[in-house]
Amino acid sequence: MYRIGIIGCGQLARMLALEGMRMGLEFTFIAMGDEDISPIQPLAQGPVVRWFNEEDAASNEAVTHALSQCSVVTTERENVPPALLDLVTTVAVLRPNAKALTAFSRRDNERQALTQLGLPVAPHTIAANAEQLSACARSVGFPQIWKTICDGYDGRGQWQIREEAQLGSVDIPAAAFPLLIERRINFTRELAITAVRGTTGEIRYYPLSENHHLQGILVSALAPAQIDAQLEHTAQTWAARLLDGLDYVGVLTIEMFETADGLLINEIAPRVHNSAHWTLGGALTSQFENHLRAVAGMPLGDTGVLGRCAIVNIIGKHPPRDSAWLASNMRLHDYAKTERAGRKLGHVLVMDAPGCTFSQQISTLEPMLAQL
Amino acid sequence: MYRIGIIGCGQLARMLALEGMRMGLEFTFIAMGDEDISPIQPLAQGPVVRWFNEEDAASNEAVTHALSQCSVVTTERENVPPALLDLVTTVAVLRPNAKALTAFSRRDNERQALTQLGLPVAPHTIAANAEQLSACARSVGFPQIWKTICDGYDGRGQWQIREEAQLGSVDIPAAAFPLLIERRINFTRELAITAVRGTTGEIRYYPLSENHHLQGILVSALAPAQIDAQLEHTAQTWAARLLDGLDYVGVLTIEMFETADGLLINEIAPRVHNSAHWTLGGALTSQFENHLRAVAGMPLGDTGVLGRCAIVNIIGKHPPRDSAWLASNMRLHDYAKTERAGRKLGHVLVMDAPGCTFSQQISTLEPMLAQL
Repeated sequence: MYRIGIIGCGQLARMLALEGMRMGLEFTFIAMGDEDISPIQPLAQGPVVRWFNEEDAASNEAVTHALSQCSVVTTERENVPPALLDLVTTVAVLRPNAKALTAFSRRDNERQALTQLGLPVAPHTIAANAEQLSACARSVGFPQIWKTICDGYDGRGQWQIREEAQLGSVDIPAAAFPLLIERRINFTRELAITAVRGTTGEIRYYPLSENHHLQGILVSALAPAQIDAQLEHTAQTWAARLLDGLDYVGVLTIEMFETADGLLINEIAPRVHNSAHWTLGGALTSQFENHLRAVAGMPLGDTGVLGRCAIVNIIGKHPPRDSAWLASNMRLHDYAKTERAGRKLGHVLVMDAPGCTFSQQISTLEPMLAQL
Repeated sequence: MYRIGIIGCGQLARMLALEGMRMGLEFTFIAMGDEDISPIQPLAQGPVVRWFNEEDAASNEAVTHALSQCSVVTTERENVPPALLDLVTTVAVLRPNAKALTAFSRRDNERQALTQLGLPVAPHTIAANAEQLSACARSVGFPQIWKTICDGYDGRGQWQIREEAQLGSVDIPAAAFPLLIERRINFTRELAITAVRGTTGEIRYYPLSENHHLQGILVSALAPAQIDAQLEHTAQTWAARLLDGLDYVGVLTIEMFETADGLLINEIAPRVHNSAHWTLGGALTSQFENHLRAVAGMPLGDTGVLGRCAIVNIIGKHPPRDSAWLASNMRLHDYAKTERAGRKLGHVLVMDAPGCTFSQQISTLEPMLAQL
């Protein structure tokens, strides 16, 4: 029996577990505080242990007990609190390692790690408080985006600042500081590369995906992205530098901007990532299986593609119960979540196949499934 | 919420449920008597209801209650007792229908249904008891195979009779009668076609697979089989005649012999089948998803292949825990079962990919995984 602990109980944990159960692996889930565990509920054997904070002795003990049964522990989140990382590493093998997770747990750490490894990011600085805002903003240049350091995802905790004149009128809650002030980049496309590194140092790269966002939320990703081979090689080099530099084990995604001057790194996800959901069905080995193979010390799976494909996210509302819209070349992934505005409830994999109208299908699905 | 009831708790139920949970479907499992439910245990919410026989009032009531919560009920077995079929149809929608399941629940019914639909089978007859054996055997001709009418699978309940001289020396238990006496066919290959029919009558065909058996147990299946287009068309015609003729909804497999004179039908499986496990990863839509789409009244999925592939069954013993043997183009399916001689414990999907030695991999895996 090989048991893997997963921190977090969302759709990423769900898809990891569905792939892993197929392989005969067993899973222990740790919920963060009172997070909704419905995505993994049907896969959990018995009650799910919740971790609240380091002061909660009962939950610390329960987590310790649960994870000490695991051969290895991993996470579906990049923002695992340091106290929980400490707890995990005292009772279990954590992959990716705590240093790597910490590097990408906050935007300031992330920018620092990227800069140290010589990887290109947009001009930026950190405003520690409201007093520093104006000077920081001017030093970076306009237009710009302000982002909270922690807990921002799917466009939350972000403010778009077009010009200097706007500075006085933006109302930022004190709790949002420190803020990352970043130059807004003119880009032609958003791309992402997902790579995986095993315990032996073996690295495999998935082809790049082309990502479409609306209001900061990923609505669709198409793979493989049509891209110059030299740029793809650059992205692979960056991924290797990150993975090797941090002795990283598992799957990692780099979100990038394609600009007139080449690629620029936007964000790192030290985990399986939405922009590579297409690999589940569209590649020989899914990112979920490869993450599990990596953290379990198994040889990695082939990252080759099985054809042109795309995923379209289901956001906010479930698709029509009448499944007439589900064409023969589409595969439905439902995360077992209840509806809420902006919430990712599932995705549809669309495989390009003879007789299908691939591009037209994507453009029809996007507004239908992503009701923002 | 769409809930599907499945009769049977083996690996087929497991793979149906894993595919269905991904789609957001929910499942209720009915165990047959004291069958081992370990394959579906991790996917079952709460205790699994067992059905013993029509005299057991408590189990009848429990099954009635459980299935009345289901939108539709299906089966992973061809030999569902008539009393249970009756019970199911009084409380739920059964797909495929009871008539179709009954037609393939016993070898005598199966031969009769095939003959009625004008489909070709080997010369055969039925011996009702030991007294009839010799005359029946001589009427069919040698070599021949004797098969029990019910409950035979993976080569169990079969006797190979090479010549007339052997007749006096075969010891058949009285409980084995009636026996199907069937002429043994000289064939070049064993092939199978899997097809699916939806509630609207829509039919889709998977490409044929080439099956390899050892001691009556499937050890590997390769797809798509290289085959003359005319023969493939013939197989599709037969599948359509069966599916339409029985108003069948769901997946069905026809196992066939390829002989010097063309194709001949060996056996029908009115359910998802081992020879089409390659579709899970090797086709745009797996047989499991397509069976669920069919019985749930959804439009069917594309049956196109994603490349040349094969499955190799894991039989009797689990593969080495050291997963170094699991090459990058292989995908492990573990059924969560304990070891027992001749028992199917899992399978490995092997996808032909650049850089892999596909045929050599299959020949290495077969003796390693199928320890008969």
